Amino acid sequence: MARRRIGEFELIARYFAPLAKSFAGARGLASDNAFLAADPRHDLVVKTDTVVAGVHFFVDEKPGLVAQRALRVCLSDLAAGGATPYVYQLSLSLARGWTERWIAGFAQGLAVDQRRFGIVLCGGDTTGTPGPTTVTITAFGRVARGKGLGRDGARAGDDLWVSGTIGDAALGLLAARGALKSSDLEQRYRLPLPRTTLGARLIGVASATADISDGLIADAGHIANASRLAVHIERDLVPLSVAAKRVVMGEPALWANILGGGDDYELAIAVPPRKRTALLAAARAAKVKVARIGAFARGKGVVLTVSGQPRRIAQTGYVHF
Amino acid sequence: MARRRIGEFELIARYFAPLAKSFAGARGLASDNAFLAADPRHDLVVKTDTVVAGVHFFVDEKPGLVAQRALRVCLSDLAAGGATPYVYQLSLSLARGWTERWIAGFAQGLAVDQRRFGIVLCGGDTTGTPGPTTVTITAFGRVARGKGLGRDGARAGDDLWVSGTIGDAALGLLAARGALKSSDLEQRYRLPLPRTTLGARLIGVASATADISDGLIADAGHIANASRLAVHIERDLVPLSVAAKRVVMGEPALWANILGGGDDYELAIAVPPRKRTALLAAARAAKVKVARIGAFARGKGVVLTVSGQPRRIAQTGYVHF
Repeated sequence: MARRRIGEFELIARYFAPLAKSFAGARGLASDNAFLAADPRHDLVVKTDTVVAGVHFFVDEKPGLVAQRALRVCLSDLAAGGATPYVYQLSLSLARGWTERWIAGFAQGLAVDQRRFGIVLCGGDTTGTPGPTTVTITAFGRVARGKGLGRDGARAGDDLWVSGTIGDAALGLLAARGALKSSDLEQRYRLPLPRTTLGARLIGVASATADISDGLIADAGHIANASRLAVHIERDLVPLSVAAKRVVMGEPALWANILGGGDDYELAIAVPPRKRTALLAAARAAKVKVARIGAFARGKGVVLTVSGQPRRIAQTGYVHF
Repeated sequence: MARRRIGEFELIARYFAPLAKSFAGARGLASDNAFLAADPRHDLVVKTDTVVAGVHFFVDEKPGLVAQRALRVCLSDLAAGGATPYVYQLSLSLARGWTERWIAGFAQGLAVDQRRFGIVLCGGDTTGTPGPTTVTITAFGRVARGKGLGRDGARAGDDLWVSGTIGDAALGLLAARGALKSSDLEQRYRLPLPRTTLGARLIGVASATADISDGLIADAGHIANASRLAVHIERDLVPLSVAAKRVVMGEPALWANILGGGDDYELAIAVPPRKRTALLAAARAAKVKVARIGAFARGKGVVLTVSGQPRRIAQTGYVHF
């Protein structure tokens, strides 16, 4: 029998979004986060992410890094929601052959990040699996009631900003696989840094946000789609690390990885021009650099320019030059 | 290198409970549920459960039943917490070879149970896995602020009650494997019925509760341990279905499965004798039968009697006769 494969977004829209229709806080599953009423002054922002050995992390990865990565990808979404980390649930499915030493390292990684990000374990499940080790984290953040940020609030004329530098993780994945040499980039891939300090400061400043997990082009496109706009990105403005600059100067084809690869866990931020000063103050307070790389406009899709000249984007998540 | 294997409870106590120490709502991971402040009048009760194909359900199980089972095992814990179902997050890791038809059946199963139990999808994650299909659900219920039930409130002198009938699922598992013949029992295993209508009515009535997922002996023991008491169970009082009675009369060794096998998803309930009338009224209103099968007393562990005579329990989760 022929199998029809549909993409994750189509699958969610067709089969799962109808199941979430009656709960407004689910935002039609079009946002990364769900929003639940908490105490009178706060909403809970909820995000679930699953990472699978051999798919989302290397099978022989250090257990502490597996734990930190699993937690941090959720924290990145909470940051995009403008939330302050609160508690999390952990479901750990252990592959056969697990050792107590592995668990100890995994728990130690969580302990380190709990202190760093101010979040605490509140429950979960532990089980065995005949398959690869799989970690599901459901993380909860808190945000002022009704103020949680999503993808869908951008307006035509808003600027597109990004935090930090872009593309390091995609290049770092190549480095981890031995295709290029850079321990700095490899580290960026193995242990992302969620922008929780910046995210919570974007309330009242940003009109829409997304974390860059699927790649800059894809995630900027998600904001544009959800806001029913086009987004223009100027490649020359995209901030690169020293290591990424060096690599892409030697091999310009790697721009495709930088703009189309995922796992940066930086924030893409739509900001009205009149809020520019507020954004820069928030970034300074959070000790995170931000860069303006484009703008939202009427229309549809992602328009990429290089020195002002349009370039064709063949498909989301991969860019041809 | 020799691997030391430790049990799930020991693993949680040693490595994960320390991570939950600073959050009171985690109850030291000794409860099945976590408790988060919600609106001024409610707490959120949170429960995560993972089911793995080939471990927790048959690889060729109907997708609708997989979905319902995954959701219902969480709902059973919410019921034990005294909570009313609210929303849930779904993480679905799909084995290679998944079909859109399978997803459609899975979503249909969720839709049926959303209506039946009054719960709505609010978010989640979908991914592929080279291993078996794995479903993690984090379910949220609501309970009056500070009133959520747990395992640790039983007092010496409280009676032990159970809902419904015990052992059908364990016998049903044998039936599903072809070791005995009973479509009624098999159905009880394949599709548990969480006692959500009863659970919410136990607030102010029960002093402690647990759902019977690990087996009656084990879960009654969990209440006793958490409450620092012993629990006495009289086997002759344990309510059996007509089908289970017939089977165990023919093969008395199956009492081990009935008392030690899991997956009943009935409630074990500690109730002070003066609340007996209130319990019976709650059960009537919920249209669920309850039976008194024993009592809590000073001491430690589970004491099983048959017609008043003590019987040795060789190990939790398995009973020798």
